[in-house]
Amino acid sequence: MSLKYLSQKIAQTIDEELMSQAGGFSVDQLMELAGLSVAQAIAKVYDKSSHSRVLICCGPGNNGGDGLVAARHLSHFGYKPNIFYPKKSTKELFQRLVTQCKNLKIPFSINLDEQLLNNDLVVDAIFGFSFTGQIRTPFDEVIRKLKETKLPIASVDIPSAWDVEKGNIDNCGFTPSMLISLTAPKLGVNQFTGKHFLGGRFVSPEFAKKYELNLPQYPGIEQIVDITDLSKGKL
Amino acid sequence: MSLKYLSQKIAQTIDEELMSQAGGFSVDQLMELAGLSVAQAIAKVYDKSSHSRVLICCGPGNNGGDGLVAARHLSHFGYKPNIFYPKKSTKELFQRLVTQCKNLKIPFSINLDEQLLNNDLVVDAIFGFSFTGQIRTPFDEVIRKLKETKLPIASVDIPSAWDVEKGNIDNCGFTPSMLISLTAPKLGVNQFTGKHFLGGRFVSPEFAKKYELNLPQYPGIEQIVDITDLSKGKL
Repeated sequence: MSLKYLSQKIAQTIDEELMSQAGGFSVDQLMELAGLSVAQAIAKVYDKSSHSRVLICCGPGNNGGDGLVAARHLSHFGYKPNIFYPKKSTKELFQRLVTQCKNLKIPFSINLDEQLLNNDLVVDAIFGFSFTGQIRTPFDEVIRKLKETKLPIASVDIPSAWDVEKGNIDNCGFTPSMLISLTAPKLGVNQFTGKHFLGGRFVSPEFAKKYELNLPQYPGIEQIVDITDLSKGKL
Repeated sequence: MSLKYLSQKIAQTIDEELMSQAGGFSVDQLMELAGLSVAQAIAKVYDKSSHSRVLICCGPGNNGGDGLVAARHLSHFGYKPNIFYPKKSTKELFQRLVTQCKNLKIPFSINLDEQLLNNDLVVDAIFGFSFTGQIRTPFDEVIRKLKETKLPIASVDIPSAWDVEKGNIDNCGFTPSMLISLTAPKLGVNQFTGKHFLGGRFVSPEFAKKYELNLPQYPGIEQIVDITDLSKGKL
């Protein structure tokens, strides 16, 4: 059985069901586990001896929240995260995530050019599976700069600016070195051949069966599973 | 610098501060990371090939919540948890934690005698650092049965029924095989010589300094650190 790649609609349905009364999860819980997955995957691929300075680019929604949680865990893991978060959410959860990062002395800066010169790795937590349509300012400029950078990029859930179902159409975005899909990969990344992890070890077998996710086995006590070989050559 | 053992008052102050506006954490987040720590520590010590059936005994408060989260993660790790949760909290978070476990088909049972016969390991998530005074029914009986069982017991934060500062005075409780202290160990366990882990990798260095916690370095990407040797022979 091969890995299931989700349409945008199914990804949204799954997210809503996990947080429904039937699923029982809060966004705090899911974001905590998602962000921890991202941090763990990055630590697997990029050693802190060579890639200690990690620029986390956060978008205005939940993908950005996953990035903020990842920044916190990376800081605890001994990395030196820096956060670029130009459009801060006013939601209470996001304000708290910012507070948690500030308590760890993680710097926030909106000077992206400078940040790209002074980091070893970029985490793209700008847009997630609910992204559609035109990219609003300032993120159009951010995407342009990420297309130009020579730094390795790790994308959260879907490379930002990619069509969630059709992928990098018309070369709209950049191709990251690494991708951390959450819950299940999305249709748009089914031709992605870079390092690919799956995170979000919170889906029940029954739930996975209902949506025919065909999830791989997560190893040991980890929150991530390497699906690079599973996903290579898919479709 | 030796590990700091917390008084009950300081443990409560730290908990409140972490969840204050200044700390920024929600109980959902802290409980998720605490429960994950517990599950990871158990998986380090008790292999699922020999100790797959894990009875999680949950008390009515937050220690019980940590147990419910641990049960969920243990299920994802491939263990077969069973939950004994005789006094369910009516709080929304706890109802959701129960839902999450039920979605994983984790059985709930209030027949403790039967459960003790059909499990390989007990997780004691009955009382935590805010425990004081007399043990109310049905937990007096539960403690008595846990004193008699031959199964290994892993306690969460403090062995239940122990005085949080004075320990197992008057042989009031049982001595667990293993302890997972959360955030920092409590005064009552400073003579505990069994396997001892610390969990709760969410404390900022500044916060740790303020309370002179002298926390050890957590390894790699783990949520736990083995403090057995650090804590042995303390005092």
